Amino acid sequence: MEMINDEFYMALALDMAERAQGQTGINPVVGCVVVKDGRVVGLGSHLKRGTGHAEVHALNMAGSDAEGSTVYVTLEPCSHYGKTPPCSERLIHEKVKRVVVCCEDPNPQVSGTGISMLRQQGIEVEVGVLRERGRRLNEKFIKFIMTGLPFVTLKTASTLDGKIATRSGDSKWISNEPAREIVHALRHRHQGIMVGVDTVIADNPELTTRLQVEGISPVRIVVDSKLRLPVGSKIVKDGLAPTWVLTTDEASQEAAERLEAYGVEVIRCGPGPRVDLLHGLSKLGEREIGSILLEGGGTLNGAMLEARLVDRLLMFIAPKIVGGYDTPGSFRFEGVERMSQAIQLHQLEIEQVGDNISIGGIPVWPE
Amino acid sequence: MEMINDEFYMALALDMAERAQGQTGINPVVGCVVVKDGRVVGLGSHLKRGTGHAEVHALNMAGSDAEGSTVYVTLEPCSHYGKTPPCSERLIHEKVKRVVVCCEDPNPQVSGTGISMLRQQGIEVEVGVLRERGRRLNEKFIKFIMTGLPFVTLKTASTLDGKIATRSGDSKWISNEPAREIVHALRHRHQGIMVGVDTVIADNPELTTRLQVEGISPVRIVVDSKLRLPVGSKIVKDGLAPTWVLTTDEASQEAAERLEAYGVEVIRCGPGPRVDLLHGLSKLGEREIGSILLEGGGTLNGAMLEARLVDRLLMFIAPKIVGGYDTPGSFRFEGVERMSQAIQLHQLEIEQVGDNISIGGIPVWPE
Repeated sequence: MEMINDEFYMALALDMAERAQGQTGINPVVGCVVVKDGRVVGLGSHLKRGTGHAEVHALNMAGSDAEGSTVYVTLEPCSHYGKTPPCSERLIHEKVKRVVVCCEDPNPQVSGTGISMLRQQGIEVEVGVLRERGRRLNEKFIKFIMTGLPFVTLKTASTLDGKIATRSGDSKWISNEPAREIVHALRHRHQGIMVGVDTVIADNPELTTRLQVEGISPVRIVVDSKLRLPVGSKIVKDGLAPTWVLTTDEASQEAAERLEAYGVEVIRCGPGPRVDLLHGLSKLGEREIGSILLEGGGTLNGAMLEARLVDRLLMFIAPKIVGGYDTPGSFRFEGVERMSQAIQLHQLEIEQVGDNISIGGIPVWPE
Repeated sequence: MEMINDEFYMALALDMAERAQGQTGINPVVGCVVVKDGRVVGLGSHLKRGTGHAEVHALNMAGSDAEGSTVYVTLEPCSHYGKTPPCSERLIHEKVKRVVVCCEDPNPQVSGTGISMLRQQGIEVEVGVLRERGRRLNEKFIKFIMTGLPFVTLKTASTLDGKIATRSGDSKWISNEPAREIVHALRHRHQGIMVGVDTVIADNPELTTRLQVEGISPVRIVVDSKLRLPVGSKIVKDGLAPTWVLTTDEASQEAAERLEAYGVEVIRCGPGPRVDLLHGLSKLGEREIGSILLEGGGTLNGAMLEARLVDRLLMFIAPKIVGGYDTPGSFRFEGVERMSQAIQLHQLEIEQVGDNISIGGIPVWPE
């Protein structure tokens, strides 16, 4: 049973924001609920970059009921003229009585200004209701707004003995059907999907979002230092989503032009021989890719971990043992010397997904 | 809140049986609760091989209240003269009114005879209350009584990337303190603990049970085809528990005698060059070892898995990534060709133990 209180309405605002994940680009997801005299009178969610903010939609729905109402909003109302006028002004103009905010604006330079604008006009403001849930929801936005780099979720699927294939290379299937559906939901919620070129050569994947309903496919990003990406690959030819390649100055101009003829964008990241991954992420950020789902292979996963460019890890583990002496795992890198130097996973989230196990968390590197 | 019904009293009987795990040798653990006129009048548990059965203790406590009572017992009352007279006769003699049984006797040759003896005397008998819990509790006993082979629990501790050490061999510590305490509880509950000789050479472990309270240490069993076990090892010299070595006919008699001089029992299992593991388990069974905790290394774990001699798997996973190209994992064996040939873990039991994850289950091999 639920109690009806601030959390009750904020949870609805968060639910609305959650459903819009993946459709707001580098913008945050935000939900808003307007309550007056014990009744919900307005609902709103930010749905697409460049269109109305959550508060605007909700206040429009509330109409004249906005006056004297309590407004629940999952992110501090903005105080600046961006693509739309500031929401704080609109809340003041509508004469709302009370504003309940889940999270402050993550940008320390503007954090609190929307709230103080409201308070100066005598509006009662409460901050921090369900704050942790709100922060988790916008972790990608927060990373991007603070650093200009995309938030990277590294996803793997392996056996109990840490393998991603049998000794003969057979990998169909490791994870179960529900786990694979969750991966497609993750694709929908990230702006880019990143793989190494060897994965494309080996599996010729589509790297699109395939849900039981329609979804949004991310930009397909291939890390390919020598431009070995075959022009016959599905991701080069199928036109189902943009395909970008991160490469090096060493890679031949001829190979680049061959790919560009198919509409592939070739982005050079450093002199080589390996792709400078930080440079690459920075260039992706400039192109407004605020989030990336990293789907391996082991070598790229290992390099991204070593470069400390992974923000969240999600491992699906299938209850299988396949053995094999040299069969590859999810993370291929030189490794640490001492157990105390291990990369640690914090804020663990463990779930059973059918007969698979998912383990999620935030990687923390040793000092 | 609990309801008071047959399950309520049977759960107490199971709780009592559970606490005695590890102290009944190859015997099952059994609990018994006697209830009369809405009050518990007797409690009993089988505590040690060769001593009173659960029913006997509980009926002794009940005294004259046994007449007309309901008796809850976690295993079908015995019908044969063994080390003690049959419990079915005692129940009849005491004129109990009703007997509620959790599980039938697992041995198909005697299963049901205790129950039918009671029914023939007009005692009402119900069977199967909390049956699955009861079977799980006596899985070791069931395996041993049916096959003469010990029940083998394979326990591992690894990182998220499946490693049991860093590239330099550092393994202190992978699992956390609560996980290690659980391992000592497992040792208490198995009659033998089994390792490969390389583990002894590398780590010189004690392989005893160290709990916050007193516990029972298992027989220490080393798989050592060439009798390389150093006479200076703790397990040879400390006298804290018996130490047995499984070896081959190839191993030198001189080495055997050197170990035997310290009280180590040398058991030859097949011609070699490797220890015949099935032969070894069979000899352990003959020596009334009904359960073994297998604590690796990777080569022995892999060989036991390949030989299909593992009855339960329990993996502790620490939220760490250590990398390394050739660092060893928990199961070292040639491996299967196709993903569909993987060893599958059934009846999954997943738990979070502090920041570690435990994954348990029953291995099932492909046809």
